[in-house]
Amino acid sequence: MSGPGKTAVTGIGQTAYTKESGRTVMSLCAEASAKAIADSGLERGQIDGLISFTMDTNSDMDLQASLGLPMVRFTAKAPFGGEGAYATFQLAAAAIESGQANNVLIFRAFNERSEARFGQPNYGPQGAPRDLHRSLGLVTPGQVYAMWHKPFLDARGLTNEDLGHLVVQMRAWAANNPAAWFYGRPITLEDHQRSRWIVDPVLRLYDFCQETDGGVAFIVSRLDTARALSQNGGSPLVRVLGVQQAWPLGESMMYNYYKSNLVFPEDTVHVANALWEQTGLSPAEIDVSTIYDNFSSSIPISYEGYGLCKPGEVRDAILAGEFGPGGSTPVNTNGGLIGEAYLHGLNNAAECVRQMRGTSPNQIEGAKVALCAGRQCGMVLARE
Amino acid sequence: MSGPGKTAVTGIGQTAYTKESGRTVMSLCAEASAKAIADSGLERGQIDGLISFTMDTNSDMDLQASLGLPMVRFTAKAPFGGEGAYATFQLAAAAIESGQANNVLIFRAFNERSEARFGQPNYGPQGAPRDLHRSLGLVTPGQVYAMWHKPFLDARGLTNEDLGHLVVQMRAWAANNPAAWFYGRPITLEDHQRSRWIVDPVLRLYDFCQETDGGVAFIVSRLDTARALSQNGGSPLVRVLGVQQAWPLGESMMYNYYKSNLVFPEDTVHVANALWEQTGLSPAEIDVSTIYDNFSSSIPISYEGYGLCKPGEVRDAILAGEFGPGGSTPVNTNGGLIGEAYLHGLNNAAECVRQMRGTSPNQIEGAKVALCAGRQCGMVLARE
Repeated sequence: MSGPGKTAVTGIGQTAYTKESGRTVMSLCAEASAKAIADSGLERGQIDGLISFTMDTNSDMDLQASLGLPMVRFTAKAPFGGEGAYATFQLAAAAIESGQANNVLIFRAFNERSEARFGQPNYGPQGAPRDLHRSLGLVTPGQVYAMWHKPFLDARGLTNEDLGHLVVQMRAWAANNPAAWFYGRPITLEDHQRSRWIVDPVLRLYDFCQETDGGVAFIVSRLDTARALSQNGGSPLVRVLGVQQAWPLGESMMYNYYKSNLVFPEDTVHVANALWEQTGLSPAEIDVSTIYDNFSSSIPISYEGYGLCKPGEVRDAILAGEFGPGGSTPVNTNGGLIGEAYLHGLNNAAECVRQMRGTSPNQIEGAKVALCAGRQCGMVLARE
Repeated sequence: MSGPGKTAVTGIGQTAYTKESGRTVMSLCAEASAKAIADSGLERGQIDGLISFTMDTNSDMDLQASLGLPMVRFTAKAPFGGEGAYATFQLAAAAIESGQANNVLIFRAFNERSEARFGQPNYGPQGAPRDLHRSLGLVTPGQVYAMWHKPFLDARGLTNEDLGHLVVQMRAWAANNPAAWFYGRPITLEDHQRSRWIVDPVLRLYDFCQETDGGVAFIVSRLDTARALSQNGGSPLVRVLGVQQAWPLGESMMYNYYKSNLVFPEDTVHVANALWEQTGLSPAEIDVSTIYDNFSSSIPISYEGYGLCKPGEVRDAILAGEFGPGGSTPVNTNGGLIGEAYLHGLNNAAECVRQMRGTSPNQIEGAKVALCAGRQCGMVLARE
């Protein structure tokens, strides 16, 4: 069976990340997309695929019209978003490797703060299964995730103060990233511990990701196209070495607390094993990671699930500052969804591309392999 | 660039097609899916991909749980449905040819008559662009399609009576198909012309597809897997020889009457040319076709667009009975969406599989190549 590895990220683009864009979502989407195309060095006529999430509300054809793409011959949506965000790159790889498209535009844009606040009780479909959980008082994602993260946190001895140490490290990265909402605003552990409880005793305000208006976009191309662009004065070649979704039986996108074992992240371990098999790499060879951090408590679960530490070692790694500036396993060098912005996970992928190009404001010197880690989907990028 | 051709349809399944199922949509979806898996001869553990339309409301993970699939590693949605229905097979081919999945389940199920009637003015998203058209009195798909089909019909000299000749041929197929809503109920041209106007002067009641409750599903597999299944006593091997989407600039899924030329189906011609290039075939080598027939007026446009006749010859072909039993270019031998059921186009694909297997109630003797024709997407199947 062939694996990925025949595609590369040739373009990235993003809007300003704000709390009230004052613009239409399509305007944000088109801006990010146009920037990604320009960044790639491709002509608009060379973009022949469009991929996003099922939760994205931007019409493919409206975006095509906004950008003036003459012919699109592959469109698809990855399921949901967030922790499955990198599935978009898997679909792009599938389209390109099978010859169905040559250059795919991946996009995600929303006014998630000023229009459609995912964290609000009244957001989202009103049918089952969400209504069932609402009827039990679990009305927001924070409540839901806190409940099924707690067994893991307890098993690893992680308190909210420990999560605070982690958030301080994320915010240190964000403080040095001009695109980040919290640019220039680092916090101390005391600041974190003074922020108000949202889901006592698991998550405080500063453990939550940002609500964001904005857009982010990528161009994924065939490897030969990417190599030619790079050799003709473009950005360094950033290969998609591996990308994988995994949905074990009994999985739920949000309501995962039915699983018999909430300490072992079965989905993530499946993704990780597939990535190591596809890439021939091991966790020790990852130079920099982004980990989907809708909540701070998501980070240690994925960190361990991807094998960035041995089971049980994550608390020590956090307290030793290994995730932050100067740490041995830098995580979310953009500040993550907590510190930079919440673009449903994809802004973390953009940071991995920057790290591979050598253009991150928090550049990890000599970084050649990056991991984009989500719960049910992950991706490995490499600078060639 | 590689083309498709490395995948095969190994399983098909469908529920009864009714007007009031009295069941949940997931129940219909799971029944059709389970039948497709059983039909393929594969174990459930071998199904590792799930693909449907963005309009489908069945949760991937609920379906996975219903069927007991241990691990899904590729999920994706094709845009919308209907005339883009065969995009699901393009996504499946991409997943399989790129090594991201081995056996993909494609599914579509709804209670489209008893719950969510697409043809009603109050169905669907209430935002732009639909509201704009509603405000102008174009409140149902029948009104919308009639308006942008009319220039083509006029250019080809096609009256509603001519469409009646076409519907009579579709209903003759349906009358001999036990799964069809209109099984045992052929009509005459007089019956058609006596049916009431819905959109005067273009479409009468009998020009409309059926509103249907039901489900249909397919298994798409690697060619080597399919060949082994076939050689071990399974159904004849049905290859996906070619499959393509095409979205030219300025295209609209529903509101296409803005295009400057409504006589030339630019999208369909692009799809068709790509299919001939992928397969090395020509329209003359198509033994049997299904053409997406949400309305009878859709058929002549696609028939000509795919090159099944020369421009201007479609009226003569209709009046000569070439589409119906005994005709030279049999179309919709299941009765189509007008005569069998409206499963958003995919029941027409199931009929093409049956024709390739030699198991259609209206079997075209010796048929070896079938065309599944939609406006913006098409597929060529071949019996090996």
